[in-house]
Amino acid sequence: MEEWRGMPVVKAIAEDVTARMEVLAKKDIVPTLAVVRVGEREDDLSYERGLTKRFDSVGAKVVVKVLPVDVSEEELARVITECNEDKDIHGILLFRPLPKHINEKAVTELVSARKDVDCMTLTNFAHTFAQDGQGHEPCTAQAVMEMLKFYGYDLTGKKAVVIGRSMVVGKPLSMMLQKKNATVTMCHTKTVDVAEVCRDADIICAAAGVPKMVTSDYMSEGQVIIDVGINVVDGALCGDVDYEAAKEKAAYATPVPGGVGTVTTSVLLLHTVKSAEEV
Amino acid sequence: MEEWRGMPVVKAIAEDVTARMEVLAKKDIVPTLAVVRVGEREDDLSYERGLTKRFDSVGAKVVVKVLPVDVSEEELARVITECNEDKDIHGILLFRPLPKHINEKAVTELVSARKDVDCMTLTNFAHTFAQDGQGHEPCTAQAVMEMLKFYGYDLTGKKAVVIGRSMVVGKPLSMMLQKKNATVTMCHTKTVDVAEVCRDADIICAAAGVPKMVTSDYMSEGQVIIDVGINVVDGALCGDVDYEAAKEKAAYATPVPGGVGTVTTSVLLLHTVKSAEEV
Repeated sequence: MEEWRGMPVVKAIAEDVTARMEVLAKKDIVPTLAVVRVGEREDDLSYERGLTKRFDSVGAKVVVKVLPVDVSEEELARVITECNEDKDIHGILLFRPLPKHINEKAVTELVSARKDVDCMTLTNFAHTFAQDGQGHEPCTAQAVMEMLKFYGYDLTGKKAVVIGRSMVVGKPLSMMLQKKNATVTMCHTKTVDVAEVCRDADIICAAAGVPKMVTSDYMSEGQVIIDVGINVVDGALCGDVDYEAAKEKAAYATPVPGGVGTVTTSVLLLHTVKSAEEV
Repeated sequence: MEEWRGMPVVKAIAEDVTARMEVLAKKDIVPTLAVVRVGEREDDLSYERGLTKRFDSVGAKVVVKVLPVDVSEEELARVITECNEDKDIHGILLFRPLPKHINEKAVTELVSARKDVDCMTLTNFAHTFAQDGQGHEPCTAQAVMEMLKFYGYDLTGKKAVVIGRSMVVGKPLSMMLQKKNATVTMCHTKTVDVAEVCRDADIICAAAGVPKMVTSDYMSEGQVIIDVGINVVDGALCGDVDYEAAKEKAAYATPVPGGVGTVTTSVLLLHTVKSAEEV
């Protein structure tokens, strides 16, 4: 099996972004992401550190707006509106879930679609569904597509299986794989025999959030196996795929950690740069 | 094979709608659809006649706004805005394609999401994608679901194949079938062996727009075959399914004409009533 790691993809995106940022620099534009964070949840802080490092590495900017956990909906809305109107901010990332006293859907919809670089708004859902080349797609789903593009995998005519039907990964990824002419089967918790469906596929994308659920029994020789899962088991990170089994059967597979997850913040950077270019 | 005809579904919807309209009548509300038509295209006129008859049969209203083919974008936009603001209009149907001098996407987006009873706007695309129970779904895709509901077909755990990836039928229908816990495979023109995929399914939904493409070779014993195609061959209507073959192999199938297409305007009526209830 050949391992498809995320880091070479990260580097390729960084090169692309650097070239595009040179053009922007001539217009005194520095791609800038506003992170709106309510409280100090460890997950959020960890992701924030990761993306800040990634943005820093190419000279793009991250501005963090921290609000107390008891912030009013009005105040949070005011901060988002301020980011919408600030011409030096090109992308907005709002950490969710929000505290329960806040109407999360309503607040999320306040983010301007153009600056909604992680596809949280209805407008960007619609563009992702239609695959009309407009708007921003969800970063993790697009990270999978960036991996496939980088490693030169042609999806036309391939049988793809997506496990998981979330709006963050499963559904958008299904639409994106279909756009590239794969025949996509969407599996989920009510699918009777996921293993059987998977064995019949050319490419498996696991986004179920179930540690190592894709066992040897799900695989057949020569497949591509993309692991989008990020689970913590006994204090260690693992994906949705039994990687040892993949090593035996797959032609190509992505590890966890070091695979798709590594690329997500690079896609966030790509979207922020794209948004800055469209100013 | 048992034939699943549209007319019993139409009647069941009419009964439901009649009961709901009695409640609305007490508040002096008559569900009203505005049809915005540019020019006199025969397709549009035929559909308009059909839906007017359907609405008339239960006492709902259709108001037709006819504009000349050389209407300006401004004037068309004005008519749509007028319909948006008119509290006696609950649904708006804009016939498309529009003449080439008009920016169709921009004009379509003017329709208020609440009155967009045939899912033409980004907001309703997004709700259909998310399957969040909000907004209006595309009428023909929902007509399929109404058929399945009426005939008591439980989709949970079933393997469904959708042929066609349009935003009018294929993609929304895939999302709706998935929501009902089917495992959906989305086929299209680049699928290598559609027949093989179809043979493995419990239910086939054909929305390819290719006359009689689903032949005996695509079928296996005991399947449900839903024909969403409406094609004209030698002056006669036919679907995407070879119905004679379906009679031999399928357990249940929908005819063309007399099947899904019959139910579409009833769904338009349902959406208009729902919109009137939400005033």
